[in-house]
Amino acid sequence: MIILIQCNDKVGLVAAISGVLARQQLNIVSLREHVDKAENRFFLRVEVEQPADPLRIEEQLRQVLPSDAVIIVNPLPEKKVVVMVTKEYHCLADMLVRHYFKTLQASIQAVIGNYNTLEDVCHRFDIPFHHISHEAIAKEAFEQQISTLIQQYAPDYIVLAKFMRILSPAFVAAFPGRIINIHHSFLPAFAGANPYRQAFERGVKLIGATAHFVTNDLDEGPIIAQQIIPVSHSLTASDMMRAGKEIETAVLAKALRLVFDDRVFVYNNKTVVFE
Amino acid sequence: MIILIQCNDKVGLVAAISGVLARQQLNIVSLREHVDKAENRFFLRVEVEQPADPLRIEEQLRQVLPSDAVIIVNPLPEKKVVVMVTKEYHCLADMLVRHYFKTLQASIQAVIGNYNTLEDVCHRFDIPFHHISHEAIAKEAFEQQISTLIQQYAPDYIVLAKFMRILSPAFVAAFPGRIINIHHSFLPAFAGANPYRQAFERGVKLIGATAHFVTNDLDEGPIIAQQIIPVSHSLTASDMMRAGKEIETAVLAKALRLVFDDRVFVYNNKTVVFE
Amino acid sequence: MIILIQCNDKVGLVAAISGVLARQQLNIVSLREHVDKAENRFFLRVEVEQPADPLRIEEQLRQVLPSDAVIIVNPLPEKKVVVMVTKEYHCLADMLVRHYFKTLQASIQAVIGNYNTLEDVCHRFDIPFHHISHEAIAKEAFEQQISTLIQQYAPDYIVLAKFMRILSPAFVAAFPGRIINIHHSFLPAFAGANPYRQAFERGVKLIGATAHFVTNDLDEGPIIAQQIIPVSHSLTASDMMRAGKEIETAVLAKALRLVFDDRVFVYNNKTVVFE
Amino acid sequence: MIILIQCNDKVGLVAAISGVLARQQLNIVSLREHVDKAENRFFLRVEVEQPADPLRIEEQLRQVLPSDAVIIVNPLPEKKVVVMVTKEYHCLADMLVRHYFKTLQASIQAVIGNYNTLEDVCHRFDIPFHHISHEAIAKEAFEQQISTLIQQYAPDYIVLAKFMRILSPAFVAAFPGRIINIHHSFLPAFAGANPYRQAFERGVKLIGATAHFVTNDLDEGPIIAQQIIPVSHSLTASDMMRAGKEIETAVLAKALRLVFDDRVFVYNNKTVVFE
Repeated sequence: MIILIQCNDKVGLVAAISGVLARQQLNIVSLREHVDKAENRFFLRVEVEQPADPLRIEEQLRQVLPSDAVIIVNPLPEKKVVVMVTKEYHCLADMLVRHYFKTLQASIQAVIGNYNTLEDVCHRFDIPFHHISHEAIAKEAFEQQISTLIQQYAPDYIVLAKFMRILSPAFVAAFPGRIINIHHSFLPAFAGANPYRQAFERGVKLIGATAHFVTNDLDEGPIIAQQIIPVSHSLTASDMMRAGKEIETAVLAKALRLVFDDRVFVYNNKTVVFE
Repeated sequence: MIILIQCNDKVGLVAAISGVLARQQLNIVSLREHVDKAENRFFLRVEVEQPADPLRIEEQLRQVLPSDAVIIVNPLPEKKVVVMVTKEYHCLADMLVRHYFKTLQASIQAVIGNYNTLEDVCHRFDIPFHHISHEAIAKEAFEQQISTLIQQYAPDYIVLAKFMRILSPAFVAAFPGRIINIHHSFLPAFAGANPYRQAFERGVKLIGATAHFVTNDLDEGPIIAQQIIPVSHSLTASDMMRAGKEIETAVLAKALRLVFDDRVFVYNNKTVVFE
Repeated sequence: MIILIQCNDKVGLVAAISGVLARQQLNIVSLREHVDKAENRFFLRVEVEQPADPLRIEEQLRQVLPSDAVIIVNPLPEKKVVVMVTKEYHCLADMLVRHYFKTLQASIQAVIGNYNTLEDVCHRFDIPFHHISHEAIAKEAFEQQISTLIQQYAPDYIVLAKFMRILSPAFVAAFPGRIINIHHSFLPAFAGANPYRQAFERGVKLIGATAHFVTNDLDEGPIIAQQIIPVSHSLTASDMMRAGKEIETAVLAKALRLVFDDRVFVYNNKTVVFE
Repeated sequence: MIILIQCNDKVGLVAAISGVLARQQLNIVSLREHVDKAENRFFLRVEVEQPADPLRIEEQLRQVLPSDAVIIVNPLPEKKVVVMVTKEYHCLADMLVRHYFKTLQASIQAVIGNYNTLEDVCHRFDIPFHHISHEAIAKEAFEQQISTLIQQYAPDYIVLAKFMRILSPAFVAAFPGRIINIHHSFLPAFAGANPYRQAFERGVKLIGATAHFVTNDLDEGPIIAQQIIPVSHSLTASDMMRAGKEIETAVLAKALRLVFDDRVFVYNNKTVVFE
């Protein structure tokens, strides 16, 4: 059983929490705690060996913790997700394969594409695909269609697996803290469009990818995971793009594992990740 | 203030420990806990914000913990070390520089070399150097001289910074858990002599280095840190040796930082490292 | 157009080769050359900008090169492969996805499994799957069935994508230099069975994977690619296995890309890889 | 013997160059060639086994190459350098140690500091240290003093080993292509002052360092080498700074090795690095 707690910091929090668990004869297998001193914020993730009644544990924790505490006892083991894509397959296919073999720790409800390029691969894995074109339609209407569709699936998370349209603040605000994006650069370097072209022209020796929660500042949300690979002068811009796709796939996979495994806290445009 | 605890696992340990701290109004800044289920062993490292009387804390912890508990409250911030070398400079020089600029978190008492190659660089940093040759002397007598000398300095740790003689079980037993070695391979690959030659002949694409505590099984003690670098066919065996020295220096520096910062527990030929 | 040449080294080889190309007005875009001094062996890979008659170029090269030279002009852009699997999906699925989206640089002719676990995923991608069980049959007959089947497809390469049976020398000898294996450890460490269990018990801080050509010495063929990831005490043996699968997938994908892109030479149990 | 050639690309360059070498019975041990198609620019580095008369080789190469060709035959094996520092020791100390043990491939003529913090460590290694304060003096006069001093030493390269003052275009123009800087971020992310504070506030999961040639655009010159290390929420801004110093030291060391080993070409704000 996993318990997640986030609240303002004060003396005695660990004692209070572990006291509750000890009185229930629950053995702590793994405990991670972090205090952000600048924000005076306390984060804790604990795994206990035995199952227990989550409602009862939560009630008892609430009695000993500050009233602002966010307490999650026994989070859902399998998250519901909707995936949004454009034309690039690599991140989506990786998710579909893991989903099919039951190692994604999430259930893909549907895939929404603004092109139909990836419809066939979704159908091969029996996943509903919805084609909602952004062409010949106002942006507001386009997003409204997507939003309505997403709400029908009631997902825990929306994964932008190379969705190449910028979402409006209104759309983002409708799903606060629930949209995960893979950005094709080592943010904050090369924010914006065509990062591989930028990287090639700048002559960098590393390229990277960043998985982050989406907020209203484009390419500026809390970072979950980042990775890089070395590149050299011998790579063209399109070689860099190919290499970048490998790292994008790996970084998104890692970020989703961390999020779906309840290892990520978000606070003030930053994450606390208990790997 | 740092507190380290290792004991057999049972329900309620975190509650007992954090209860002691809370009653003293000590705020936990960082807490790392690990349970080795196979060994039923509990490891905990906690940093508290405020200073406190270490003897009193230790006494109170002892009252609530099992009798087998190893409790260290407020470990020495600066460890005393003796360094043993042969001819290669890279690890020693890195330690001397950090020592001189007070970032080693340790005080180098002396350097012992079985050659005098590195005497001059030690003197440039005002560190005593003792030349004890292994030639024209029985191994037992050679080690006895070293042992006697080390004991005069009463070091917390002995660092083998490319000391290329194999130490006898008797020597190792005289300093249990206190000898740290840097091995020039990614153990357990290429144990034994001349690992770069072995790596070259095997045509590997990565070479590495391993920092570990020394036990009686040569190249077999608990591993503290390991790192690798990619290599290619274009490197000769001596190129690999040069590249390997960079990684040896980095790995030993990392391992020493972890040990001197009281982040490493040892149990049953393994380490628990709270990075 | 790509040209690959391997022969004994002597003065003037580059001049002879580039002279042939210059006389045909062919522009060299990229040239990689390596001489293994210990073996006196010359390796060269050159990309030229313009297309040309491969037979004519090969004939002219043969006139200026030693008689032992292995010359490949304009290698097949798409290799034919047969994949062999047991139950683990990760490497196969990665290959199937790349094949489906035409980024594998190879054509998967068929998949052979000694269990039928992965039959369904192959069918989803319209790839023939053959189930040949190793049970209730002598090893010789088992391998004979596989061998006969493979020969029908006439593949350029056979990829062991987590095929967990040891192949006999006779089988290996039937496909010299054409079998590629992914081994679940950083060879030569942890050769043999159950490397993650071994790695866990040894308490290593890195785990890895190795893609190599198969020879008669088990886990001992020429290494094409290797990679590692850091691990810590907090991973169980099964966590290490999960993490290891990510790195196995990545390493096999990289090795296949290098081989299919004609960047790998083999000589004397080593590879020369022009990345 | 090493030969470096840079010129506009055309058909037949490799044949022309290798023909010259073959006629002198010089055996090519390693040849690296790159063509920047966008710029139509040809780069070549070749190592030959035997010594030869460099003037004669250069003359013969000049006869077969375009008139714009930059030809360097047998570059100086040991470069002369002047190092500029402020207060941080890590990059300078690494260079001093390598210099002392004759593995820097360069001769440190002198160190110039705008503080005298690092004077003592220079004297311990018998390297002249010049203290030129930037205080109570106009920037122009400050740079003039430095420039005059540098010219006395006639260095091949000037290494900014954590020199924390911005140099004027006039200063940079006086040493074109000869100033190497280590920047404490993964450029282009976090250009400008205090990158670790920026990285901490942005909550990145990787920090890096960049070694580059200095041009008039601050933090914008051709990149020689870059590296990163993973970081987590548990690091404070000062922890990041400490970790960053390790990577800065490693990246500068690598970049200097590449430059001093004549493996770096510069063209149009980019580098071609034949590692």
